[in-house]
Amino acid sequence: MKEEVLRQIQEIIPKERILTKLEDLHAYSYDASFGEYLPELVIQPESAVEVSKILKLANEFKIPIYPRGSATSLSGGPLPVKGGIVLDMSQMRSKLIIDRENLLAIVSPGIKTAELHRKAEEVGLFYPPDPSSSQVSTIGGNLLENSSGPKGLKYGTTKEYVIGLEVVTPTGEIVRTGGKTVKNVTGYDLTRLIVGSEGTLGIVTEATLRLIPKPQARKTLLATFERVVDSGHAITKILASGILPAAMELMDNACIRAVENFSPSGLPVDAGALVIIEVDGHPLAIEEEIKKCEEICHEVGATSVRTAQNEKERQEIWSARRKVSPAITQAGPTKISEDATVPRSKIPEMMERLYQIRDKYQLHLVVFGHAGDGNLHPNIITDKRNIEEMKRVENAVSEIFEAALELGGTLSGEHGIGILKAPYMEMELGAAGLDLMRKIKEAWDPNNILNPGKIFPQPGQTKVVLTE
Amino acid sequence: MKEEVLRQIQEIIPKERILTKLEDLHAYSYDASFGEYLPELVIQPESAVEVSKILKLANEFKIPIYPRGSATSLSGGPLPVKGGIVLDMSQMRSKLIIDRENLLAIVSPGIKTAELHRKAEEVGLFYPPDPSSSQVSTIGGNLLENSSGPKGLKYGTTKEYVIGLEVVTPTGEIVRTGGKTVKNVTGYDLTRLIVGSEGTLGIVTEATLRLIPKPQARKTLLATFERVVDSGHAITKILASGILPAAMELMDNACIRAVENFSPSGLPVDAGALVIIEVDGHPLAIEEEIKKCEEICHEVGATSVRTAQNEKERQEIWSARRKVSPAITQAGPTKISEDATVPRSKIPEMMERLYQIRDKYQLHLVVFGHAGDGNLHPNIITDKRNIEEMKRVENAVSEIFEAALELGGTLSGEHGIGILKAPYMEMELGAAGLDLMRKIKEAWDPNNILNPGKIFPQPGQTKVVLTE
Repeated sequence: MKEEVLRQIQEIIPKERILTKLEDLHAYSYDASFGEYLPELVIQPESAVEVSKILKLANEFKIPIYPRGSATSLSGGPLPVKGGIVLDMSQMRSKLIIDRENLLAIVSPGIKTAELHRKAEEVGLFYPPDPSSSQVSTIGGNLLENSSGPKGLKYGTTKEYVIGLEVVTPTGEIVRTGGKTVKNVTGYDLTRLIVGSEGTLGIVTEATLRLIPKPQARKTLLATFERVVDSGHAITKILASGILPAAMELMDNACIRAVENFSPSGLPVDAGALVIIEVDGHPLAIEEEIKKCEEICHEVGATSVRTAQNEKERQEIWSARRKVSPAITQAGPTKISEDATVPRSKIPEMMERLYQIRDKYQLHLVVFGHAGDGNLHPNIITDKRNIEEMKRVENAVSEIFEAALELGGTLSGEHGIGILKAPYMEMELGAAGLDLMRKIKEAWDPNNILNPGKIFPQPGQTKVVLTE
Repeated sequence: MKEEVLRQIQEIIPKERILTKLEDLHAYSYDASFGEYLPELVIQPESAVEVSKILKLANEFKIPIYPRGSATSLSGGPLPVKGGIVLDMSQMRSKLIIDRENLLAIVSPGIKTAELHRKAEEVGLFYPPDPSSSQVSTIGGNLLENSSGPKGLKYGTTKEYVIGLEVVTPTGEIVRTGGKTVKNVTGYDLTRLIVGSEGTLGIVTEATLRLIPKPQARKTLLATFERVVDSGHAITKILASGILPAAMELMDNACIRAVENFSPSGLPVDAGALVIIEVDGHPLAIEEEIKKCEEICHEVGATSVRTAQNEKERQEIWSARRKVSPAITQAGPTKISEDATVPRSKIPEMMERLYQIRDKYQLHLVVFGHAGDGNLHPNIITDKRNIEEMKRVENAVSEIFEAALELGGTLSGEHGIGILKAPYMEMELGAAGLDLMRKIKEAWDPNNILNPGKIFPQPGQTKVVLTE
């Protein structure tokens, strides 16, 4: 980085919030995917004005800017693939206001998702989006990636809860979008365009989030099935019965075995699939609903159905699901976590396709996910140092994407495109669809300084997992 | 229109679907606002391919194109303000498919909103957006305007139910956005950018809509209050108690009097305000919830509270609300219906400001609206032939917008900007915010052929109601 640029940055940001040491740069070189790219500099801004000044400077000197929350991205979202400056937004955390009268929260981007959960619940309110990283991830990161988690089925994704933003645009303007009302049709919906834009269209410096009353009670059951296809029937039949569960989580046989190996708790290791169903709402309503869910599970041939009778038993049921990630990583050092999503009715077919791909490429593949909304997580456990195996992984991942699209689904339900899925964008969107997105990016960010190298396929880029 | 253009149009569209007679053009010259503009030609396309070809031609010859559903817009959305061609999309109505397994509907743009309501409810499903024009309005119009209605509080707006679109872009490309899954983070959210874009960014030729299980039961009450401020307390207290009603509708004294004059049904003409509250969900849950709502209304000083004991009584309660529009138009031939929206807690203050504006300009102003989400409908009853009065209306409307923005609200909660609110866009969005929108429009529609003259203020445009 030029001396002149560094001098100007030091005029904007106090020295202690500019990191240049190699060990610091290393700490900002990775995320929860498996890429590693060293930035030239890390800045920890504390205000929209500071971000604005840095972006204006970056435009003048054509320096890539990479906004970063807690770097829990599974798709390479915050990785500084073209060097430049990482903006560590996790330090901007001065605001966390709950407005009870208007059922709103006003938050700084560095606030952790779980902090918002707790603060809202203290006053009987509820912020539903709950990515599994919520203890660590920041609201800013959640917004730019449109994170969701298990409650998307009933409550929607992060996007459904964002009604206003303060944003610094790629050219360094500070802009407010939306506002404090759920209904707002004043011009284009820039709020929802920026949410999920993976940090390529603007940097969020404050957000206004909608809260809802906290559900009064919840009930949880765990059902096991001999075959995946039966679990699929249970899911569609429950929804057709008029019940909208808060969560419907699926784990396949490989998942169940991995969890049981990792920490035995009596899960049936021969079951083809296990489903966790949680309903929430009025105590009387959910009492009836969970009974109906039990009945339906039995009707479609569940081998066992167990409803938690108290919070302790509920935690036991969820602990099976929570152990999936630590359990499956026992099998290898590299975990490729996908989030191909299909229409709900296509889950059994998609599972079939995933097993064919697993067998064809002889890989260690396990499947779990948010079955209620068709959002599966096929995970391949591998070792990135094994180049021969990684080539098979590469082909398998391509075929997973193809299968999801053929079944009317999407490349990514919640992890985002980042660098890992960029080469497949045109396959889903077509040239004209991708071109519409590119036109917005070029119109807003003429110097391509904001999170360059993400979402859009780079010239000649064909690889997914072997980017380096 | 040039001979050559008409000849080429006739090659694309059969003659019987091209309207050129003056009486036909007149029929397409107005909407539910009070503007009137004659198009040069009306086309009734029946496929995306036809729309695409017309748009390509329009780009070649720089002809303005105005998409139109049932023209129930209150903001001038479909008016052909620069002449050119009206595309009557209400004839494109071949598809209305309910996909029960995936809780989806696939619909053509010309399908009426009420048709979708009925078809979904036949199989126990529910499409919540319910603009008061739903018996007449088309899904295509609802989407492009992001319509909502009374159920926005609990269920959100149209936008929350659109997950995929087939769209013809301003340059005539046929593109698919989103898909059949609720979770989709593959690139920018073009679906939600196009929904609410008022026909300036693309023409919807098919939509994939999310449905939810139909609520099993509902309960409705009508409460009256001496003062508007007390009704405001009832609303915020009910929400703070953990209940999320499906609707909370407010009518002020002038509204109550108008309805009682129009068709006497025993409403208390001295009441400052009347609130209709409807809860829906599980029968046992709502039984308890409606009791709690009654209690709260009494606590804050309601002068009367009546809960419907059966469907007939429920219809009676809602008929008071439904009579508002026909009742208030008795007072004058021109109705200026605004939809300024404020944070819920600011409703009493906004009502105060509205009455000050009414008194200052000596106008006939009544207020009703969707109080639960802060979406008020101040209506001014006037006569557009009375130029002197219209000047006062003009100033009053400006002050209504200013008041809404000062209280942290928005120009438009559900009617859209169209031509009537365009001059106020910068007041809400700032120059930089408006510029971001303009950049998208220019990048996608370089010849400005799609619904030109809408949303963005025209050079020198300062008037709101006196555009002609």
